[in-house]
Amino acid sequence: MSEVYAARRTRLREYCNAGGSAAALVSRPANVRYLAGAAPRGAVLLLGKTEDLLVCGGPTADRPGQERPDEALRVQALPGVGGGDPAVAAADLAAGQGADSLAVEEHHLTVARHRALGSVAPRLRLANLGSAVEQLRVVKDEEEISCLRIGAEIADQALGELLESILVGRTERHLALELERRLVDHGADGPAFPTSVATGPNAGHPGHRPTDRRVEEGDFLSVCLGATYRGYRCEIGRTFVIGTAPADWQIELYDLVFAAQRAGRESLVPGAACRDVDRAARQVLDSAGYTEGLTALTGHGVGLEIDEDPQLSPTAMGKLDACVPVTVEPGVHLPGRGGVRIDDTLVVRPEADGGPELLTITTKELLAL
Amino acid sequence: MSEVYAARRTRLREYCNAGGSAAALVSRPANVRYLAGAAPRGAVLLLGKTEDLLVCGGPTADRPGQERPDEALRVQALPGVGGGDPAVAAADLAAGQGADSLAVEEHHLTVARHRALGSVAPRLRLANLGSAVEQLRVVKDEEEISCLRIGAEIADQALGELLESILVGRTERHLALELERRLVDHGADGPAFPTSVATGPNAGHPGHRPTDRRVEEGDFLSVCLGATYRGYRCEIGRTFVIGTAPADWQIELYDLVFAAQRAGRESLVPGAACRDVDRAARQVLDSAGYTEGLTALTGHGVGLEIDEDPQLSPTAMGKLDACVPVTVEPGVHLPGRGGVRIDDTLVVRPEADGGPELLTITTKELLAL
Repeated sequence: MSEVYAARRTRLREYCNAGGSAAALVSRPANVRYLAGAAPRGAVLLLGKTEDLLVCGGPTADRPGQERPDEALRVQALPGVGGGDPAVAAADLAAGQGADSLAVEEHHLTVARHRALGSVAPRLRLANLGSAVEQLRVVKDEEEISCLRIGAEIADQALGELLESILVGRTERHLALELERRLVDHGADGPAFPTSVATGPNAGHPGHRPTDRRVEEGDFLSVCLGATYRGYRCEIGRTFVIGTAPADWQIELYDLVFAAQRAGRESLVPGAACRDVDRAARQVLDSAGYTEGLTALTGHGVGLEIDEDPQLSPTAMGKLDACVPVTVEPGVHLPGRGGVRIDDTLVVRPEADGGPELLTITTKELLAL
Repeated sequence: MSEVYAARRTRLREYCNAGGSAAALVSRPANVRYLAGAAPRGAVLLLGKTEDLLVCGGPTADRPGQERPDEALRVQALPGVGGGDPAVAAADLAAGQGADSLAVEEHHLTVARHRALGSVAPRLRLANLGSAVEQLRVVKDEEEISCLRIGAEIADQALGELLESILVGRTERHLALELERRLVDHGADGPAFPTSVATGPNAGHPGHRPTDRRVEEGDFLSVCLGATYRGYRCEIGRTFVIGTAPADWQIELYDLVFAAQRAGRESLVPGAACRDVDRAARQVLDSAGYTEGLTALTGHGVGLEIDEDPQLSPTAMGKLDACVPVTVEPGVHLPGRGGVRIDDTLVVRPEADGGPELLTITTKELLAL
């Protein structure tokens, strides 16, 4: 793996040098992890003029269960108890290496930290690295996709087991906790984001936080969960009906959201504009009159964070590339009645390779449980 | 409750006006919640020249399970799908109200957001609010302490139940998940922080992330958990021995950490210097030769965040006031062997009121389980 991290750092270094900076300071944890193999709490990565360093806030004893940084990378732990801000120390080190300019992540560093960097190394010109690392992270290699695939399998398993159990009478909170336990049982590092279980009038609400409401006959039940596996986060969302037979309005609404979600999935081809994928899903809902209350996004990238570029939204710029994993997750929520969300994680693949690769394979038929 | 929030905003406004700013923008979520009663995702609070506003990023439909903002506060939702950064909108509104200066949280706003604020309202002078709200939050009112007390009771209950179950053979991960389920069972909003369960050589490691290691006879088992109740977060940590009888080294180490923790607790009086509380605990460990590998803090404030001011550390400034809740949590970890941490949440109270109020009342006798 060490070559992978070294190659990523080389790409970033080339980008920085082209922008006129001899050195870069990466502080956003997911970016540090992407380039260094691990992001101990508070650690920052210095791509220095003469050497790259992972600068950590305190002693970095090997802890079980913790990822280890790339062995090719020197780790510098700040001395003493509570050794200060690693970003400030890294700026000092960059200046010590003779760099005259340091590109920093202005979308991550606070104004106060940025000022502290300027104070410790007043001769260092602070430039903006922007989201250069986030942009490198968009297209995944097969190793990364493999982590997402395993995470998706784990989420499918956890969801499948839940569906076999008795649901009526149990609270949203308990179902969410049980799903999270099952994720860990099946080998996840943990949930990729707080598991959402929404029943009855809550169903279909994006990001609904589980309450003490109990599952009742006739409810819609929508569930959204994901596993983190080796740092990679995937997402699956499904909606079910509780009871013997769904009502007509439930079938209609489900079919509509399903059609929107399929339209989104089918438009996932390399070269497609992100806003066109969004439009494909959104216009199915729009044309049925559900213009109000739609979410800002119908999907987004996933990876080391659960919400990455690209964004699938009406105002999104850019096009999809092959090997970009995204969610497709349109939904409709009717206040007071509930609603439907269907959410898959897929990888954009060329037609010649069979088109989009579906990672979350739980059925999307409307199940009555 | 509305008067409480209004009074807090008045105090902050007086502070700002004294500093020469007619308006303030609060963006750090715990600070927004403290002043507005709720912090919908991404929302910021504008203490404006003519009116206070809670500015939210999208539609703010009432969701079950979500706190509601202070009713005396006007809520402004940004229009449309994905309506931009509420902080930028708030700066625009502040300028529209005729403010010439806006104090912002430079320790929370990123450089990029700060620049966007400057662009939207170029005539507005951006000043630094610093940690003014964090400082207001240090001393708690009895309502806040009551939330912490209930949270502590919940954590005590969850821990007590775990101790009655069979532990040998179960993994750290499973024990942690079960504790979190029990927290929710007993009425917590959720865990206050990721529950830590550490066995054998992992025991006593601060912030240990649970692994698949199973509990064995003869292990130290250290557990650290907390409940969030109405937003308020408490913390308890205990260490146990698995098996019929602890070994001599285990008893010695336990007694030492217990003595250190008691020394810290007993030094919690209004007016005590934070560093003296730290020293009281730390010197017990120091004088027994455990100078290496001690953590930076032996305790910290708790409240809407799990790690607040004051900090109990060798370099801490400031003194303790009455009604400040803090943890006291010294520990020792011996690499390869394990260790002991003992952690309570207490409220500083004057001697006349009976001295420090212990919120986490689970026994600190060395239990052999």
